[in-house]
Amino acid sequence: MKLCRFNDNRLGVIDGQEVIDVTEALDAIPRSGYPLPPFDPLIANIEAVTHRIGALRGQSKRLRLEEACLLSPVANPGKVIAAPVNYRKHLEEVLANADLHHDVKINHIEKAGLFLKAGSSLVGAGQGIQLRKLDRRNDHEVELAVVIGRTADRISRAEALQHVAGYCIGLDITIRGPEERSFRKSPDTYTVLGPWLTTADEIPDPGRLDLQIRVNGETRQKSNTADLILGVPELIEFASSFYTLQPGDVILTGTPEGVSPIRPSDVILAEIKGLGTMTVHVSARTETLGQRVA
Amino acid sequence: MKLCRFNDNRLGVIDGQEVIDVTEALDAIPRSGYPLPPFDPLIANIEAVTHRIGALRGQSKRLRLEEACLLSPVANPGKVIAAPVNYRKHLEEVLANADLHHDVKINHIEKAGLFLKAGSSLVGAGQGIQLRKLDRRNDHEVELAVVIGRTADRISRAEALQHVAGYCIGLDITIRGPEERSFRKSPDTYTVLGPWLTTADEIPDPGRLDLQIRVNGETRQKSNTADLILGVPELIEFASSFYTLQPGDVILTGTPEGVSPIRPSDVILAEIKGLGTMTVHVSARTETLGQRVA
Repeated sequence: MKLCRFNDNRLGVIDGQEVIDVTEALDAIPRSGYPLPPFDPLIANIEAVTHRIGALRGQSKRLRLEEACLLSPVANPGKVIAAPVNYRKHLEEVLANADLHHDVKINHIEKAGLFLKAGSSLVGAGQGIQLRKLDRRNDHEVELAVVIGRTADRISRAEALQHVAGYCIGLDITIRGPEERSFRKSPDTYTVLGPWLTTADEIPDPGRLDLQIRVNGETRQKSNTADLILGVPELIEFASSFYTLQPGDVILTGTPEGVSPIRPSDVILAEIKGLGTMTVHVSARTETLGQRVA
Repeated sequence: MKLCRFNDNRLGVIDGQEVIDVTEALDAIPRSGYPLPPFDPLIANIEAVTHRIGALRGQSKRLRLEEACLLSPVANPGKVIAAPVNYRKHLEEVLANADLHHDVKINHIEKAGLFLKAGSSLVGAGQGIQLRKLDRRNDHEVELAVVIGRTADRISRAEALQHVAGYCIGLDITIRGPEERSFRKSPDTYTVLGPWLTTADEIPDPGRLDLQIRVNGETRQKSNTADLILGVPELIEFASSFYTLQPGDVILTGTPEGVSPIRPSDVILAEIKGLGTMTVHVSARTETLGQRVA
């Protein structure tokens, strides 16, 4: 199933070029008192929500996909985790270019570890990217994003995929410079998830997915997740050896070679086979955060 | 006012050596549907909660402070932000010791930027620290922690303190090694906040606070926030130029010189003048996460 969030926090199921509005199924999620739960309530209750969707589906309203403003399919991730330099050719590209490494030592991922992005940086495809620090280089990075489905504490790679709820496309937007990755990759709108969540049952092997990104019609990155240094099971093992993963936690698996600058008014088209295609508009931070039709 | 959270998510007001149980005041916080709000509900509603506390205070039950298991005073921070090498003498200490810098280039804070810690790493003083990776060096770092009270987007240092809800003591527990700070400082229990939240009205100048930490009775770090490279107003200006701060976001302001290893069965005593004293027990990750009496 392909689950999307759209417009004013509505829930939808993708059916070809249409969205079936199943917002009523969100009633299956219990309301939260204080303190709030440490997980994403939709992902943690996805079985109950899916069950409700089954009952609603036939009688629900439909709209055309292009009429929906797509939000992040995960609203409340406890952690947005990301993998640095996890494709060998991207590692070579970074080492060869001072504009990318900024005289900061670049380590192999197992030595560099994973990093965090701020939850407040998260938007959906329809909301667009608003660039800050326009005097500096801002780059696109397209990545396979993994959404954790079950609590995972010190999980082996063999068991890892049982803990995945689904997958989507992730854009890890990046200000180049010497700062910690967790800082210069965390401005508001610098993490795009979309176009929707494809549940794990539709993706038996996340290690064989073509991914690509085009900017203003020009292909900039094109690879396959088979070229990941640490694949999805290894990343879950690595992450969960340091901290507990909760339902809704997101792991951005790293970007292949071909990172390049983006500027206000650029239009990004990102695609991962089986997960869909998403269009994302780029503007400058000074504009008001608006809702754009995807 | 000094507000604490304790036992099974109870709310208290500190009165000398006693805790006034004002849990009923949490009724002033609206319940949340899905999606969850991007802020901490207690901090975002602190005026309404404080108002209810005023009405409850005279008729509430009291318990002795040592009977309460203290939880983190902020339950749901959207971001836990931290400042690297923000005391000049700690910067010198790190540069001089390969066990601390691990051949990773150490930059001045304005070049290094801030980093993030996982929200899942957060505990209160009564819950204790559970160390992982015992084959590696694990260090204590004591810090002034700032809790944001109002949404802050591109705020100048002159306006910054108006956006602070209060302060507490923070422990930024750290596995030494080459990985990104946001990874090796984020295991579960590696961020301790406590003993309680002291509201900002009680701390007119966060730039003149004595802080210290003792391990097994021996003083390890002892400094004053006057020695911060970037003070609290400058840190809020710096952080909010990159991302929007929300009520309940935490900024750990950095640690002074004197960081040193901790081991299972150590007992930490941390103190910041005006914010209280907290005792934190250290154990190994293999034990079950228990609730310890502070």
